[in-house]
Amino acid sequence: MQEQAPPMRRGRKRALADTTPRRTVNYRQLRNPFTPQNVFSEDEVAELHATSLRVLRELGIKVLLPEARDLFAAAGARVVDDMVYLDADIVDAALATAPKSFTIHGGTAPREVVMELGTLSFQSGAGAPNVTDLKRGRRPGALRDVEELTQMVQHFDAIQMLSPGVEPQDIAPEVRHYAFTKAQLTLSDKVPFVFSRGSEQVRDCFEMIRAFRDLSKAEFRAKPHCYTIINTNSPRQIDIPMAQGLIDFARYGQPSVVTPFCLMGAMAPVTVAGALVLSHAEAMAAITLTQLANPGAPVMYGSFSSNVDMKSGAPAFGTPEQVKASLGTGQMARHLGLPWRNAAGCAANINDAQAAHETEISAWGALMAGATVIIHAAGWLEGGLSVSYEKFITDMEMVQVMAELCTPTAANEATMAFEALKEVQPGGHFFGCAHTMERYASAFYAPVVADWSNFGTWTERGALDASTRATALWQEIVATHKPPANVTPERLRALNAFIAARTAEGGAFPVS
Amino acid sequence: MQEQAPPMRRGRKRALADTTPRRTVNYRQLRNPFTPQNVFSEDEVAELHATSLRVLRELGIKVLLPEARDLFAAAGARVVDDMVYLDADIVDAALATAPKSFTIHGGTAPREVVMELGTLSFQSGAGAPNVTDLKRGRRPGALRDVEELTQMVQHFDAIQMLSPGVEPQDIAPEVRHYAFTKAQLTLSDKVPFVFSRGSEQVRDCFEMIRAFRDLSKAEFRAKPHCYTIINTNSPRQIDIPMAQGLIDFARYGQPSVVTPFCLMGAMAPVTVAGALVLSHAEAMAAITLTQLANPGAPVMYGSFSSNVDMKSGAPAFGTPEQVKASLGTGQMARHLGLPWRNAAGCAANINDAQAAHETEISAWGALMAGATVIIHAAGWLEGGLSVSYEKFITDMEMVQVMAELCTPTAANEATMAFEALKEVQPGGHFFGCAHTMERYASAFYAPVVADWSNFGTWTERGALDASTRATALWQEIVATHKPPANVTPERLRALNAFIAARTAEGGAFPVS
Repeated sequence: MQEQAPPMRRGRKRALADTTPRRTVNYRQLRNPFTPQNVFSEDEVAELHATSLRVLRELGIKVLLPEARDLFAAAGARVVDDMVYLDADIVDAALATAPKSFTIHGGTAPREVVMELGTLSFQSGAGAPNVTDLKRGRRPGALRDVEELTQMVQHFDAIQMLSPGVEPQDIAPEVRHYAFTKAQLTLSDKVPFVFSRGSEQVRDCFEMIRAFRDLSKAEFRAKPHCYTIINTNSPRQIDIPMAQGLIDFARYGQPSVVTPFCLMGAMAPVTVAGALVLSHAEAMAAITLTQLANPGAPVMYGSFSSNVDMKSGAPAFGTPEQVKASLGTGQMARHLGLPWRNAAGCAANINDAQAAHETEISAWGALMAGATVIIHAAGWLEGGLSVSYEKFITDMEMVQVMAELCTPTAANEATMAFEALKEVQPGGHFFGCAHTMERYASAFYAPVVADWSNFGTWTERGALDASTRATALWQEIVATHKPPANVTPERLRALNAFIAARTAEGGAFPVS
Repeated sequence: MQEQAPPMRRGRKRALADTTPRRTVNYRQLRNPFTPQNVFSEDEVAELHATSLRVLRELGIKVLLPEARDLFAAAGARVVDDMVYLDADIVDAALATAPKSFTIHGGTAPREVVMELGTLSFQSGAGAPNVTDLKRGRRPGALRDVEELTQMVQHFDAIQMLSPGVEPQDIAPEVRHYAFTKAQLTLSDKVPFVFSRGSEQVRDCFEMIRAFRDLSKAEFRAKPHCYTIINTNSPRQIDIPMAQGLIDFARYGQPSVVTPFCLMGAMAPVTVAGALVLSHAEAMAAITLTQLANPGAPVMYGSFSSNVDMKSGAPAFGTPEQVKASLGTGQMARHLGLPWRNAAGCAANINDAQAAHETEISAWGALMAGATVIIHAAGWLEGGLSVSYEKFITDMEMVQVMAELCTPTAANEATMAFEALKEVQPGGHFFGCAHTMERYASAFYAPVVADWSNFGTWTERGALDASTRATALWQEIVATHKPPANVTPERLRALNAFIAARTAEGGAFPVS
């Protein structure tokens, strides 16, 4: 048993001429190479689906927006006060018109992402009121944080979509969406996110994106250019801004990502199957609403199910229950044939081993479940109450490794290396052989923040842990940010003029 | 977007009567619930296998032990000096007699583990010269560390087998195997490990295990009661103690776990496919030797392939190349139909986010590859140059979550919770409903070291990171250790008498 590398090789300095081609990888459009894994039998999936339909039919869902109830009623649903009861035929008809594949466009062509079963995109940690980093400490999110985190997302190709990272609480609510959307459009060319906080804000954001991309109104509506996330108010409730968002996005041809947030034991039953029944029912109701508003509108299925700690009621992530719920949700999504969103997560309060373990476990669960989009894959801390700059960087190692796993690996005459095996004698090494020399510069994934030096060297260099090393990295990324190619002075002027005009009009207050 | 739990629930104290049954789980005999994932096509697997056979036939393998060369020669192999050239028919005949399933017995019946494709066992970090913990710092491994780590392995059912955790360097080499085996036998009833450091040491250890379990010599040979790990000296070399171990273990009916340690770019070609060809060739040669020594002897296939950092030559773990090599090795193992060993790994120098990420990535790779045994799953640091007590604890969270994923999850009338969904009104919560009350105490996995309290509570409690919390846990485990049921005064006396007698005779020096 001697499973360490021979000591004399450990401190070996680079002796190879640095002339061979560098590794090039495309992390922008990924396809999940793995077979989606199941937790339930096909019979159980059918039972879960049937029980969710029964929930919608017999128990109903509370819909707080009158316009949404009217759409449901017009489709034949029974509406009693604010309760909507949906028969299976209404849901089936809606699911039949929901597209199984669509493309969301970014600010430049290489940033488009395809949403369908089998594709894979990552999003960084989102929805947090606070941010934290080792230089400035933990604090409420501000516009500067939104901007810096957007720059960090832009830096890494393996994060394909922007997400609502943190809430810029230093900006007044009625103009916050201008600042948030401007940061996305001017610091990144990736797919932007729009909050669903009322029709007026949504229309403002659509207009900013449309104009910045030189699209006519018809062109904007013809293709997805952004997306929103719709969290139902589990159990069995869709509030006013969420219902309005579903309708508005559908009518503008823009996708909603429907995501019930079902914490087992809190907002959902204490069992994986019970939480899935609820989550699936809510998701189908919300998807139905999009199709009633505009049949054929792009929409994504989704779920974010984990459990609470029954001792304290605190949410937990990276648990086996979360992984099982993710696998089960994937089965329900495939049952419907729709692209779907899942999430990594972590409840740790600092970027330590717990944070990494929980994020890895939940992300692998989402990956093996065949999720189309994995949100909260980098930086999410405290169960979503903060985004950590350092965790963003250390989590990117995981995200990039997962992206690397999407690249094919060949076994052919060249890679099987028989000639190299012939050249190197028993007990020798392959450092200098021709096969290695031809490939060494691009053979392996180059890490973001991992330090592979030995204990002595690492100690000499200051014994810095991964979080501390990550600080230097995000600082460098922010300091060296360059605007994407589509950010022109003309577009910037027009954007600023729109914001100035709308701000002068008083902006648009969020609806609740 | 509001993906945090409602604040009022976050600090909720336990209000539920603590009377319902506690969760019981069996982590002792696991079956991997996932479909093994592939990285190569079936055609490529056949090509890899054929190329490995070509390596054995045309390039040969250096075998330093004359007795082993004689066995190969007697089977018809061409032997030139210390080089052995194996035709496919010799290898095929050997592979045909290697059992596809066998059981290794521990000190008590519940500790037996089945080795076959589909079963799953974990081993803690092994083979390290150093240990480290936050109380005593980094230091060369000593007998006390062996004992404490054995107690820690014994504590966690999800680690099913003992492994050569650390080298007790405070014990003289000629009597070290007595102390090491005694620690295993008296502090644990799990499957013990025996170093292959020459026939005399191996026979001593067999005798200690045999006597401690009240077995006759024939009974000992009739079933596996321990195991060894055989690392070839890649590339293409089997040294004297390893070859002797393969022969001795086979003749005593005890399993060898054959594990070429092929670091891509160092001891193996720089490509995944090239490393696999070499690893597979070496594994088949070693397995062949066991079957020539004793046809039908239990033996495991294995591989530990990762890459080096081509800038420094340092070994790297948790890389995409390691995951791909693991997936490929699983395909080769299934091609042969043999149970097989794979490994997690990490090159970090401290139990930080890097350490957790690398360990998770490599462990998930091994899990998805369908490995029968995953070694180095808890505590392995510095690419195997140390074992960390704290990392052992924090990694156990991952191991236990993986064990939990092996348990089935039902979707039936009770778990789908229609009645609970009916009981809880829209926007309400499930904390107090009957369905929850019946299940809350045993519904969810209880974490080892994860702290799910919110930032305020966590800060009040001292803002302890996972490693710091882990210190208290391993100290408690060590302090409260109780000997397993099979450790009787009679057996202990006999064991001590044997050791005293053999020590008086001078012990047995390791062979190199």
